Amino acid sequence: MEKVREIVREGRRVGNEDPRRVVHAFKVGLALAFVSSFYYYQPLYDNFGVNAMWAVMTVVVVFEFSVGATLGKGINRAVATLVAGGLGIGAHHLASLSGPTIEPILLAIFVFIQAALSTFVRFFPRVKARYDYGVLIFILTFALISVSGFREDEILDLAHKRLSTVMMGGVSCVLISIFVCPVWAGQDLHSLLASNFDTLAHFLQEFGDEYFEATEDGDIKEVEKRRRNLERYKSVLNSKSNEEALANFAKWEPRHGVFRFRHPWKQYLAVGALLRQCAYPVDALNSYINSDMQIPMDVKKKLEEPLRRMSSESGKSMKEMSNSLKKMTKSSTSDVHVVNSQSACKTLSTLLKSGILNDVEPLQMISLMTTVSLLIDIVNLTEKISESVHELASAAKFKNKMKSSSNSDAGSTTSAVPIKSYEGDSADDDHVVTILGDVITSNNNDQSHRESSVDSCHHVAIEIDDDDSIHDKHEEDSNIHVQTSRVSCGHTNASDLLNSGDIKK
Amino acid sequence: MEKVREIVREGRRVGNEDPRRVVHAFKVGLALAFVSSFYYYQPLYDNFGVNAMWAVMTVVVVFEFSVGATLGKGINRAVATLVAGGLGIGAHHLASLSGPTIEPILLAIFVFIQAALSTFVRFFPRVKARYDYGVLIFILTFALISVSGFREDEILDLAHKRLSTVMMGGVSCVLISIFVCPVWAGQDLHSLLASNFDTLAHFLQEFGDEYFEATEDGDIKEVEKRRRNLERYKSVLNSKSNEEALANFAKWEPRHGVFRFRHPWKQYLAVGALLRQCAYPVDALNSYINSDMQIPMDVKKKLEEPLRRMSSESGKSMKEMSNSLKKMTKSSTSDVHVVNSQSACKTLSTLLKSGILNDVEPLQMISLMTTVSLLIDIVNLTEKISESVHELASAAKFKNKMKSSSNSDAGSTTSAVPIKSYEGDSADDDHVVTILGDVITSNNNDQSHRESSVDSCHHVAIEIDDDDSIHDKHEEDSNIHVQTSRVSCGHTNASDLLNSGDIKK
Repeated sequence: MEKVREIVREGRRVGNEDPRRVVHAFKVGLALAFVSSFYYYQPLYDNFGVNAMWAVMTVVVVFEFSVGATLGKGINRAVATLVAGGLGIGAHHLASLSGPTIEPILLAIFVFIQAALSTFVRFFPRVKARYDYGVLIFILTFALISVSGFREDEILDLAHKRLSTVMMGGVSCVLISIFVCPVWAGQDLHSLLASNFDTLAHFLQEFGDEYFEATEDGDIKEVEKRRRNLERYKSVLNSKSNEEALANFAKWEPRHGVFRFRHPWKQYLAVGALLRQCAYPVDALNSYINSDMQIPMDVKKKLEEPLRRMSSESGKSMKEMSNSLKKMTKSSTSDVHVVNSQSACKTLSTLLKSGILNDVEPLQMISLMTTVSLLIDIVNLTEKISESVHELASAAKFKNKMKSSSNSDAGSTTSAVPIKSYEGDSADDDHVVTILGDVITSNNNDQSHRESSVDSCHHVAIEIDDDDSIHDKHEEDSNIHVQTSRVSCGHTNASDLLNSGDIKK
Repeated sequence: MEKVREIVREGRRVGNEDPRRVVHAFKVGLALAFVSSFYYYQPLYDNFGVNAMWAVMTVVVVFEFSVGATLGKGINRAVATLVAGGLGIGAHHLASLSGPTIEPILLAIFVFIQAALSTFVRFFPRVKARYDYGVLIFILTFALISVSGFREDEILDLAHKRLSTVMMGGVSCVLISIFVCPVWAGQDLHSLLASNFDTLAHFLQEFGDEYFEATEDGDIKEVEKRRRNLERYKSVLNSKSNEEALANFAKWEPRHGVFRFRHPWKQYLAVGALLRQCAYPVDALNSYINSDMQIPMDVKKKLEEPLRRMSSESGKSMKEMSNSLKKMTKSSTSDVHVVNSQSACKTLSTLLKSGILNDVEPLQMISLMTTVSLLIDIVNLTEKISESVHELASAAKFKNKMKSSSNSDAGSTTSAVPIKSYEGDSADDDHVVTILGDVITSNNNDQSHRESSVDSCHHVAIEIDDDDSIHDKHEEDSNIHVQTSRVSCGHTNASDLLNSGDIKK
């Protein structure tokens, strides 16, 4: 009895987590009841007989949660059945040309070779990702048709019936999954990415308060609650396999809603990978909120302004990117925040150069400096993420924001107005002049080479092509200024801040 | 033509990566050719007729790469077929009691309810992990039997034949997969964990050389090669889903080789999770090797001795754990290295307290201190990993090492001989006196509470029960001394080093 109650509770939890699961269960029941009616409906039964069971089987096996997965499996199954049916008939014909003693031996050899080869092909990464099910059905159908043909001579008829029933089952699945409360894998991937942006943005925006006020807040429960709220970012760390599966499914999906057929799902994975890379320093930062208490607040306070600004501006920039994703508009507001966070970085570096921490104990320095370097990492990653989102925006043809001029000022409190004479995109021979509100730096000479080489590594890894994105952006009038300034500031900042820990690039 | 060559190349690569894949392909071919011979063998065919195809289908669908996966699927399929067959017959009987007009409606309702409920149950995480395939087969068989029974009255005979053929197919799969070059998921998981230990150990042992000598080494190619060699650790970061799948399969496997039936596979996941947690700071450290060059070597050299020792001793300790895993023996040598790395931590903290870095620029401090704090994290994690491995060793009943006394000295160059009056395991009321070669510390008063609370969090998360492991260890004579000293040193160290960044606990 207790066990039953537990199962019901678990069921309620699973249903509440995603109510579409309940709908999906109903859809499967519907499809199956519909297909099994083939057995009752006399004309259909007369036509297909026992083969009607293939329709039932297809529905059970092919009907998946999202449209993409269902379509993928359906197409895999249909094509594999067709091809394997053809080959099976061929094999059977070939074998029947030989005598009745050799025939079974020949067929066994065919089956063996076909099964061994196909099984091996399933290990190919590309096949495994998209066509695994198809190859499985290929093995199955080939074996069934070529061998069973040994008994019945109506093999063509059998193949025809099997193919039609598989088609009927598959088509019912696909139609029901598309037209009854569809679950689009692409939409899910899109929302997942946006929500990952949101969680990181939330953490970064709250980080300043947590780090600089935690000890002052007396209400422990409240602090605990806020802290747990902050830990949502951990889900970002584990989203890799989920994102990859969704992207694989999404590729099968037809145009739906705002998504075209060839929506750049691959670019979503690139952005997602960068977000996860950003979630590592966030994870480390989080552990520092909990244990940094032994650093006296007055030491922390010395760096409060730039640190707060770095995290909150990175957070705002991510929030902007999330909004731009959700509305599918190109936005340059996030760039402004990136520039702001970078200028905060520079303020920080000036502050540190001024020797403000000279009297701090080295032991306290360790954890303070680690926090600083993590935030610098996050600022740098935010810039990369922003670039990657811009690429996504042009690849996915996001709309231009209507009120871009008014929006790019909103929320911007930048004190940095970087100007640059743009001469190309290679960091090696760039001579960048940057005018900042209060900092002038020019030590980007010998380190720039090293920095760019590390940087380009990363670019290869996630297939970001800077050239493209920059030229693309030049075509959009209203955005040019902010965009180029972002890029130039990025470069200057990178070389400039190399000293102060621009490291994980 | 080019394409064919490419496919052949890819095939060769896939085969070389794991030659057992080729063997597996042959095994599947063999099983399928064997089962399809049911069609040719007259007595068998007379018995089963068209139902022989269920044997073929079972082989194609059930035969997986590892024994565990095959067994899991086979058992799932057999049990699901049995239960669904029984229920299907029951449903059919119930429906046939009503009149011929209501019967199809009733059956459709049964199928609908069953399919919807089962589909929903598949979303339960526990069901999804181990019984997903079984539920799928349950839906399929129930639908096929209850509905097809509407036509044929030999339904009992049908169910019996189908069950026997499924059994025949399943048993052939299981037998072939066990007796022809078996691939044990458990063995794979075991090796994967050991190799993850090795890669991290390799990185940590080489880190000192890379960090302190990279700029002196002129041969860029050589440096590049070593660096790429070091980056193998990245595979550790992505091993989560692989480990979980292997553990799920391993649970199905019978006793094989040195592994019992109820080998503690879950504890492998706990150790694996800690290893991954350790791979994050390693990842960060690696990026510091590349970009720390702007720190003058003379500044780095000031901390060289303790930093080198911390990383190399952690590395040695991991290497030891890997060996202990591979040989399945309990080893205490790793504890000695853990103690050594912790004593190096203490040397470092004394060094820092002495103000050796007072004249270092704050900007250089950032990246130096970050490196320091990452290494401290790694040392702390190494201790936890060591504890977790000890638990695994007792849970899995590893053998005691024969020559433990001679071995626990080998490779140990400890200058730390921690002594402790052991009074229980709670850090709160521990009064620990630690005598170190050159450091005496006793500031473990007010911070100890905070430390222990954070610590216990982690212990819950990965299900480590300190009490057990310690009492277990007391039973092993030769190991007691080193074991308890490890534990006591751990505690002292934790409170002592809290100041110097013992943070991510």
